[in-house]
Amino acid sequence: MLHAERGPPARSVQEIRVTSTPTPVRSRDLAELAARLEAELGPDAVTSAVVAQETGGEERFAGDRSGSAAAGTRFLVVLPQDTAGVQAALRLAHATGTPVVPRGAGSGLSGGAIPVDGGIVLGLERLTAVREIDVLDEVAVVEAGVITADLSAALAPHGFFYAPDPASARLSTIGGNIATNAGGLHCAKYGVTRESVLALEAVLADGTLLRTGHRSLKGVTGLDLTQLLIGSEGTLAVVTAATVRIRPLPVARRTVLARFASVEAAAGGVNAISRSPVRPAATELMDAGTLTDIDASTGSLLAEGASAILLVELDGYGVDEQVCDLTTALVGAGGTVREIPDEDEAEHLWELRRSGRGFSPEVLRLGEDIAVPKSRLAEIFTALTEIGERHGVQTSALAHAGDGNLHPCLALPREEAGEGIEDGVLPAPILAAADELVRAALDLGGTISGEHGIGTAKHHWLDLELSPASRALQQRLKSALDPDHLLNPGKAL
Amino acid sequence: MLHAERGPPARSVQEIRVTSTPTPVRSRDLAELAARLEAELGPDAVTSAVVAQETGGEERFAGDRSGSAAAGTRFLVVLPQDTAGVQAALRLAHATGTPVVPRGAGSGLSGGAIPVDGGIVLGLERLTAVREIDVLDEVAVVEAGVITADLSAALAPHGFFYAPDPASARLSTIGGNIATNAGGLHCAKYGVTRESVLALEAVLADGTLLRTGHRSLKGVTGLDLTQLLIGSEGTLAVVTAATVRIRPLPVARRTVLARFASVEAAAGGVNAISRSPVRPAATELMDAGTLTDIDASTGSLLAEGASAILLVELDGYGVDEQVCDLTTALVGAGGTVREIPDEDEAEHLWELRRSGRGFSPEVLRLGEDIAVPKSRLAEIFTALTEIGERHGVQTSALAHAGDGNLHPCLALPREEAGEGIEDGVLPAPILAAADELVRAALDLGGTISGEHGIGTAKHHWLDLELSPASRALQQRLKSALDPDHLLNPGKAL
Repeated sequence: MLHAERGPPARSVQEIRVTSTPTPVRSRDLAELAARLEAELGPDAVTSAVVAQETGGEERFAGDRSGSAAAGTRFLVVLPQDTAGVQAALRLAHATGTPVVPRGAGSGLSGGAIPVDGGIVLGLERLTAVREIDVLDEVAVVEAGVITADLSAALAPHGFFYAPDPASARLSTIGGNIATNAGGLHCAKYGVTRESVLALEAVLADGTLLRTGHRSLKGVTGLDLTQLLIGSEGTLAVVTAATVRIRPLPVARRTVLARFASVEAAAGGVNAISRSPVRPAATELMDAGTLTDIDASTGSLLAEGASAILLVELDGYGVDEQVCDLTTALVGAGGTVREIPDEDEAEHLWELRRSGRGFSPEVLRLGEDIAVPKSRLAEIFTALTEIGERHGVQTSALAHAGDGNLHPCLALPREEAGEGIEDGVLPAPILAAADELVRAALDLGGTISGEHGIGTAKHHWLDLELSPASRALQQRLKSALDPDHLLNPGKAL
Repeated sequence: MLHAERGPPARSVQEIRVTSTPTPVRSRDLAELAARLEAELGPDAVTSAVVAQETGGEERFAGDRSGSAAAGTRFLVVLPQDTAGVQAALRLAHATGTPVVPRGAGSGLSGGAIPVDGGIVLGLERLTAVREIDVLDEVAVVEAGVITADLSAALAPHGFFYAPDPASARLSTIGGNIATNAGGLHCAKYGVTRESVLALEAVLADGTLLRTGHRSLKGVTGLDLTQLLIGSEGTLAVVTAATVRIRPLPVARRTVLARFASVEAAAGGVNAISRSPVRPAATELMDAGTLTDIDASTGSLLAEGASAILLVELDGYGVDEQVCDLTTALVGAGGTVREIPDEDEAEHLWELRRSGRGFSPEVLRLGEDIAVPKSRLAEIFTALTEIGERHGVQTSALAHAGDGNLHPCLALPREEAGEGIEDGVLPAPILAAADELVRAALDLGGTISGEHGIGTAKHHWLDLELSPASRALQQRLKSALDPDHLLNPGKAL
């Protein structure tokens, strides 16, 4: 029997479960729900009856970086101050059968935070405390709304850092990173978000507080609920805080840039690294289209003399020896290798990699996120080019090559897309190319999402990767945690 | 609806589910069950109606290294040749309502493989293929029955290794390691078993084949069933094969030995390492009792001039610089530090650590497995001594100090234990001391099991660590995967 471990004692979850029959809330009931939430959480925590696309200042809650709710979608925005507030909101949602969409910073790329009609958007953005930093235990305890980069900034004076670093680290939150099991540039060496989370504080669909995991690096008591919740995109519970592993800052860092005559040769460079003893902190592959894009928007000269670049970061002890072994491997693969001793130049290169691509409003684009076993990078780049040519779509890609994670860009100038293209709807050739690309990744033993998650954007591809047995099992797990299917309905699973 | 993805086509799981009502098998029905299993799997794969404690050669299936089934327990031993055989056995068990205890090498220390009366012991020991080694993808695909050390032996010619290394690596299997999320000496740097498993092939309770995970290092499609199954001690599914991550052998290794005047000082040395930039591959702490035990049984002289020792392994690039930073940290904490340049001497020290403790049959012992946040090591060692004195029990401990995992030994000479001590039953003072020790670990923010698992041995302590909400949720997850609760009943959860 689930029961509340914490929260207002006035009435227990058990009472709610017995006395209330969930009743779907229609749009016109949202005002009443808002009043009840305001009574519990205070008026400041509730924004009444937001309507997507019509609300000006509140529109930021209408979607994420992949798109927005359909025009006319009505929802409540609830922004609790603390975990008890999250419990109260979920208890009321549970009692009234109201769907709940948990939300971090809204920086997701898969639609996981897009509101559902008649539902609550439960924003965690006010839970921003770094509750604890303990360098001797190598852990920090942080609330879900902490911006990921802010955590590392808080750790830096202690000589520590938080390893998972999605490119969105300056925008996205720890809670959002946990919901999507976010990746980033340094995962091949330091692991994805999953490998840095030891324990969670989370609220179940009925408002019950759940604590999972342990503070020691080891611990095997019972099923690992921490791991089950990570990556579940808000469909199983709402994470309110996490105990994360922190690491000492590396004693040294070094950047190496290698130019190759083709993207296939650069992929060969990745294989050469695999055969070598050196394991970079980051191995980023940029193809010709990406280099041209960056040069066009920033004035850089990356594409000069190179059809593809590997930008590599080495860190830790013995970096000179690491540079030596890396150079041997990459030269052997046909690369022209240059160590970047100047830290400012190195940082500039990484900044170009992170955010150098200019996105003109005159071009319609789809950013993809697939992964393949890393020895198959050359093949997926070849497939990308062929698919683009077949559909008349411009293609380019960069890759977190050390872990096989590719971010292709499928683009079409707006003038070529023809008439009748509405905002937020991509032209058919881009969608057709994306479909073929996802299938190509699967054919190579890959996955339909490396790190962005499924959300709504990739939901229609789930059956390509997961067997009926797997999907049925996932639905049973969903029902075990959220029997009324109120948490982030229609997403991820 | 779950359905079979693979397996004998003669009859589908669906047919079995419709036509059979599970009926508990009593001991006298085992002969009939054996006949049906022999008909499906061949006579070689089934050992009929084994009775614990009365069967001579088959007794190895009666228990694990923590104990055996009660005398008179009747069970069938089933040893399938392959995954299809595992499916067939589970289908029949499901159809007849027969409990199933999955078994690797029987090297577990928590009773997870102890047979249940009237049940099947499903041994995976014949699934021993290393199906694939791919150094470019940095993965190996191995069957559940592969001995863990054999995998690293197979990888060595390629210059690679499999990182998880429980002390039992020469006995235990990959499947058993996955079932318990096994740890070992190198986890603080390389992670526990969980961090090295990318994908699983597993059979559900009704015989359905399930494939989870991905071959790329990244992948976030759906709930992470791989992670849910790891550490579930055979209660959710039977793992038949795994895709595991492999790593290049380190370019160098170095052993450092530091002597301390007290175990508290050695724990201070662990804190000094945490404050330093160096992160050892292994950090083993041995207290005075452990050193004395090793010296007595091997003739070594570890205890000379030391009340506690930290035995540290550094690896990778820049080991000289690592040794320098480590030495600075440990000398600052009061240690007497010696680098061991001779590889044979270093290997001898590690062998003493792994298996040097002699266990006289004249002494009754309980080996424990707890973990605490690593800054609390001094406190748990102090608690151990106090508890031992209070109960008149000899205590000693060694620790995987880098991850806070402690293996205390609670001992009483047989002659002091008094009359009436049966084989396999520990005297009351040892049991009382163990109970206090587990509670002390929890009071320090630790866990009741660092790496050995819960099995039957720690089942009675679960409520001390897990909340009612967590336990209820775990039962619901169990029911979602194994509705009839046939897989390893009474264990782990």
